[in-house]
Amino acid sequence: MDRYPKRAPAPKQNTLVIGRQPLIEAMTGGRSIDKILFQQGVSGESIGEIRKLAKEANIPIQQVPAEKLNFMTRANHQGVIAIAGLISYMDLQQVVDHVVAEGKVPLFIMLDGVTDVRNIGGIARTALCCGAQALIIPDKGVGALNEEALKSSAGALEKINVCRVGSLMKAVDLLHLNGIKVYASEMTAAVPVYEANLTEPSCIVMGSEDKGVFQPLLKICDQAIKIPMDGDFESLNVSVAAGMILYEVMKQRSS
Amino acid sequence: MDRYPKRAPAPKQNTLVIGRQPLIEAMTGGRSIDKILFQQGVSGESIGEIRKLAKEANIPIQQVPAEKLNFMTRANHQGVIAIAGLISYMDLQQVVDHVVAEGKVPLFIMLDGVTDVRNIGGIARTALCCGAQALIIPDKGVGALNEEALKSSAGALEKINVCRVGSLMKAVDLLHLNGIKVYASEMTAAVPVYEANLTEPSCIVMGSEDKGVFQPLLKICDQAIKIPMDGDFESLNVSVAAGMILYEVMKQRSS
Repeated sequence: MDRYPKRAPAPKQNTLVIGRQPLIEAMTGGRSIDKILFQQGVSGESIGEIRKLAKEANIPIQQVPAEKLNFMTRANHQGVIAIAGLISYMDLQQVVDHVVAEGKVPLFIMLDGVTDVRNIGGIARTALCCGAQALIIPDKGVGALNEEALKSSAGALEKINVCRVGSLMKAVDLLHLNGIKVYASEMTAAVPVYEANLTEPSCIVMGSEDKGVFQPLLKICDQAIKIPMDGDFESLNVSVAAGMILYEVMKQRSS
Repeated sequence: MDRYPKRAPAPKQNTLVIGRQPLIEAMTGGRSIDKILFQQGVSGESIGEIRKLAKEANIPIQQVPAEKLNFMTRANHQGVIAIAGLISYMDLQQVVDHVVAEGKVPLFIMLDGVTDVRNIGGIARTALCCGAQALIIPDKGVGALNEEALKSSAGALEKINVCRVGSLMKAVDLLHLNGIKVYASEMTAAVPVYEANLTEPSCIVMGSEDKGVFQPLLKICDQAIKIPMDGDFESLNVSVAAGMILYEVMKQRSS
């Protein structure tokens, strides 16, 4: 047993954005940033700008001692290092516009309370296979879409549009304004999934396995749909449940 | 760094069967045994009987020094300790007879080359939810259905019949003799899953994600079926693919 904890390994260099101006450029250029580290007491005009951009994009800022930043890089960090995300997040309205402009029928998956990054990765993989164009996730409560998520997605997370939103409720409003119907997958729903018309522009909301879809969110959805079960055992994995619904969508849209 | 490897932790006591007669009783009583450890040079009439029972049930026997057995237990082990399995395996013909006697339409899942115990557990979970009565797995090439598999199955592996067979080819023959159609899930198949009549007694064969179903096994299946894909990305997880097919079976059987 070591008596003293070892220093944690530094993040890989290629996931860091080092310095003030490079970070401002990365953020205004749409690159996804998971977290920003400020040296304690850092100040200046560009720091104010970074704070403003971070607030707009819901990126957490952490104050750390200079030693931590010095340990992470030998480059001149100017008191600012950011951890870049593996995934580039997209703006939901822009994705809707793009999908419609391409002449495709929108098919989105929204995840509410699905926190296991392996499930998120698995759902991204299935969604991409089934022709869904975007995955909508909240910016809170979901772990960083890290290498484990990417691996579970078999690379799909790098190909599908991922929209990270501040409020799922507002995202539903935005979808409604764009004429997209929002269906909540809910075990206790009256309507089986195959009775819903999924050939229209649709978004499917998947909730967590234990709690289902958050009640206020469920209320503003257009319809709750269920997967009818044959067995005595009602405990589908959320990734499998999403697969069944997406299969039904594909089948309806192909015939 | 330790210069010498530490002793491996002993298996939990409650998964051991200790002594000759207790092991014979466990094996004849249908309890699943993963592995038998014989003390080197052990002999006697009951040892011959254990060898015979182990051969019939495809249970591997390992010869180990007395010290290993002494380390595993303080009880009088008589040169014999067995590692009991978490899952009780069932005889395929008995399961078929039982399902038919209950007036149910057989629905089985056969796994060929699916070696990840998490996928096996996940498929067991979905299968049980969808009313499938049995999971058929080969006795070689599949890891022990351990606690990780059980966890991934959310307990379903303890509830569904698991048939561990020496040959999947012979298992297909047995299913055919019982009037059960065998469908292979195959990405390149011409027939989409929803065109197959899955209301009849059916077994679905799922292959590995990279290699698909073993060719000679595919040849003796009644039909190859595919899940039609909408996206450019054709890489479904095997557990999700099994879920889609089982959903289609449920839908056909419920209407």
